[in-house]
Amino acid sequence: MEKKLQELRGRLREISDLRSATSVLYWDQTTYMPPGGAPARAQQVATLSRLAQEKFIDPALGKLLDDLAGYEAELPYDSDEASLIRITRREYERATKVPPQFVADFYGHVAESYEVWAKARPENDFAATFPYLQKTLDFSRQYADFYPGYEHIADPLIDDADYGMKAETVRQLFAQLRQQLVPLVQTITDQPVADDSCLREFYPEEKQLAFGRQVIEDFGYDFNRGRQDKTPHPYMIGFSVNDVRITTRVKENKLDEALFGTLHESGHAMYQLGINPDYEGTPLARGVSSGVHESQSRLWENQVGRSRAFWDHYFPKLQETFPDQLDRVSLDDFYRAINKVQRSLIRTESDEVTYNLHVMIRFDLELAMLEGQLAIEDLPDAWHARYESDLGCRAPDDRDGVLQDMHWFDGFIGGAFQGYTLGNIMSAMFFDQAISECPQIPEEIGRGEFGTLHGWLKENIYRHGRKFTAEELVQRVTGGPITIEPYMRYLRSKFGELYSL
Amino acid sequence: MEKKLQELRGRLREISDLRSATSVLYWDQTTYMPPGGAPARAQQVATLSRLAQEKFIDPALGKLLDDLAGYEAELPYDSDEASLIRITRREYERATKVPPQFVADFYGHVAESYEVWAKARPENDFAATFPYLQKTLDFSRQYADFYPGYEHIADPLIDDADYGMKAETVRQLFAQLRQQLVPLVQTITDQPVADDSCLREFYPEEKQLAFGRQVIEDFGYDFNRGRQDKTPHPYMIGFSVNDVRITTRVKENKLDEALFGTLHESGHAMYQLGINPDYEGTPLARGVSSGVHESQSRLWENQVGRSRAFWDHYFPKLQETFPDQLDRVSLDDFYRAINKVQRSLIRTESDEVTYNLHVMIRFDLELAMLEGQLAIEDLPDAWHARYESDLGCRAPDDRDGVLQDMHWFDGFIGGAFQGYTLGNIMSAMFFDQAISECPQIPEEIGRGEFGTLHGWLKENIYRHGRKFTAEELVQRVTGGPITIEPYMRYLRSKFGELYSL
Repeated sequence: MEKKLQELRGRLREISDLRSATSVLYWDQTTYMPPGGAPARAQQVATLSRLAQEKFIDPALGKLLDDLAGYEAELPYDSDEASLIRITRREYERATKVPPQFVADFYGHVAESYEVWAKARPENDFAATFPYLQKTLDFSRQYADFYPGYEHIADPLIDDADYGMKAETVRQLFAQLRQQLVPLVQTITDQPVADDSCLREFYPEEKQLAFGRQVIEDFGYDFNRGRQDKTPHPYMIGFSVNDVRITTRVKENKLDEALFGTLHESGHAMYQLGINPDYEGTPLARGVSSGVHESQSRLWENQVGRSRAFWDHYFPKLQETFPDQLDRVSLDDFYRAINKVQRSLIRTESDEVTYNLHVMIRFDLELAMLEGQLAIEDLPDAWHARYESDLGCRAPDDRDGVLQDMHWFDGFIGGAFQGYTLGNIMSAMFFDQAISECPQIPEEIGRGEFGTLHGWLKENIYRHGRKFTAEELVQRVTGGPITIEPYMRYLRSKFGELYSL
Repeated sequence: MEKKLQELRGRLREISDLRSATSVLYWDQTTYMPPGGAPARAQQVATLSRLAQEKFIDPALGKLLDDLAGYEAELPYDSDEASLIRITRREYERATKVPPQFVADFYGHVAESYEVWAKARPENDFAATFPYLQKTLDFSRQYADFYPGYEHIADPLIDDADYGMKAETVRQLFAQLRQQLVPLVQTITDQPVADDSCLREFYPEEKQLAFGRQVIEDFGYDFNRGRQDKTPHPYMIGFSVNDVRITTRVKENKLDEALFGTLHESGHAMYQLGINPDYEGTPLARGVSSGVHESQSRLWENQVGRSRAFWDHYFPKLQETFPDQLDRVSLDDFYRAINKVQRSLIRTESDEVTYNLHVMIRFDLELAMLEGQLAIEDLPDAWHARYESDLGCRAPDDRDGVLQDMHWFDGFIGGAFQGYTLGNIMSAMFFDQAISECPQIPEEIGRGEFGTLHGWLKENIYRHGRKFTAEELVQRVTGGPITIEPYMRYLRSKFGELYSL
């Protein structure tokens, strides 16, 4: 068995090396690659992805997993070895269900679809994307059908990002959340909107970047094992458990964009950097799911980075960095500015309270399309109708309507959005639990100290990598199932105080 | 046949994609990778290199080449298809002669050896490197023996870098060159040494880089298909014929280092960027040999970049960039400074005239070691003795003696150095030929215009990629064999004028 396990590890390591190299190719492409490199780069990425996929769906790997099943059954469920075999099998079974030709066809299609969207969005030309979106929906349904026996056609797609979650579970969670959020948004937006003009002064790029770097270094993001570069869209990417990088986008007249983006991505990165190094080169060396990953980025961005305690410590430092812009701004006003709540059209620019309404609109539309209840041609109007009913505003065009997110133009319809809100819900559960076990955390945040929180997250979440499902992890950490109560409590308490509700 | 050729191209493309990805991993490692990434990166590079090698020595590829032999025989020798089959077969045959285990063992050994050298050099500790160097010599001899039937044991090693060259040919060329160089060096160094203190002022990094970038853009290096970054050791690297990058090292009190390094690397890069794009993804999409590649970097660095005509145009611009440092320096004095000739200890810092003597010392010592005439333990003394006899100076220690270059600690003993001097010799042959066909070139250089020269090089050298051997290329371009006469004429004319000989 020892020998078979070693062979399994060897094969997984090779696949992991190919995938890491593909990630480096992507990182280079978005940061430093000269434009001329693009065609060859697409070809290189395609070749390496294909080789990794071929090696992963190799029947010899399936055979090894079969041979190891008896051995696995004798080990504790949460042991490293049993988990390695279990998670590898889970991913192997998912991967082998989909014919390679389908994968190739689909990636060929989305590459085109993305290009069409990138051109159509600025031109407000939904019609141009229509045939692509229709084809994407067909692909998405076919994909679901490779996993027969699902309860809801979206389930196999949701599984990809948030393994174990079902359309029905998510729908119920979201329904509860919506029921509480809609009146909260109403109460808040009945009041005058906060003034955030202080964030719109001129903030030179270099100083913004230096300030953000200092904060995430204080968080515990290790620049010896990571770095930050600029890209048009911020993201986190890992090439090993000891090389996890982030990117950011800076706007010199929008102080919050790079700053909170940096805190957000550092949360993703610290998660990956905290994975047990023994998992390197295996499927365990990743985060649990899209939702759990998002819970870690949101926790540092929002629960920490937009908290009053945090700014007690950092606002004087921010004023020192930008005296001309901020010397006459009070901490109270700044705190209100970075937590301004407003009904708005763009998901990525929305606040903590309304954000989830944006996500739920997309989630519901995905389900309706997959169910065949909503035709692609009716999608733009359905979008506008839901924005009017849920957020009380209507985009003047499709550019800021259905064309605003790249997700449906760059991947499947289904499973693309729920992780954001699941992440928000879990971030509050985890943060609550951390504080109940280490009540000194809020005070430490007020002193710019994050060691206790970071250590707790490492011990309870990071180090496990992909060993558990989201539901298992939440159960282990909080002792119960996923629930919206901590999140709603957090929002009510924070925004209740801000808006004297 | 069309189908077989297509299959050959498909296989080669896959191998090329793996190799390009490996190069991107290397580039990232030396430019931006955080230190923590090193162990995983070594593993990733090893995996990708192994996969590329396995795919290249696949007997199925040999079978394809055999099947295509008849087809090849009917095509003109210099047709793209015949050349593709011929060069692929040449490299396939070389690669399949060496057992994969030997390759793995050797690379394992040099990885260690390099680490030991990197530590031993600053500590002047030749003894520490002794067992490694001994093992490298053993490996080098074994390697040669995989190619039975050689005339000289160094021939198979020389072939790797400069295909078709033999120890005997090189020895004869070098003997002729040495015979003429030694008295020339003597005559020049009998005169007072030039004053290059003007290059040692403080030159801020950013301005140095900007000036260098401007010059190579004028040369025709296309920043849409390349870029320049900083590394501890400058190099050129290509990821496709449309993405060829260079790196540089800047010293703020040594103006010539980054500047001429940049011109040098841009020469390598323009060569690769000028290769026929139809060769992308095949063994033809590389330079001919180490010597021919070096001829292209040296040509832009020396024949162009250290010429009087070049500085007629650029010195006023350099003065504008660095008025405080250069306003009181005359063009004559600057020209003498950048062409200062001096007997010195360090190859990489030496001038155009003495440089080749450094190379020949190393070449002769390599042959003596491989022949068994020189034992590793006697190498440091042999080094000092040759420096005394050839260059009239002796290093105070091994740090600036036998430990100064990484080559023998990072690869085979044999074939490591001859390319530098072959490059110098060929650079003069090619430059002469270009001028004899386009006599306006020197005048154009004096106006900062390089289109004619760049175009001639593209047409006569770059576009062919690896299609011809060095000897074939020289014959095609100049109508004769490799000869030192143009190079000696160039040195005599330039330095004769500088030193009023």
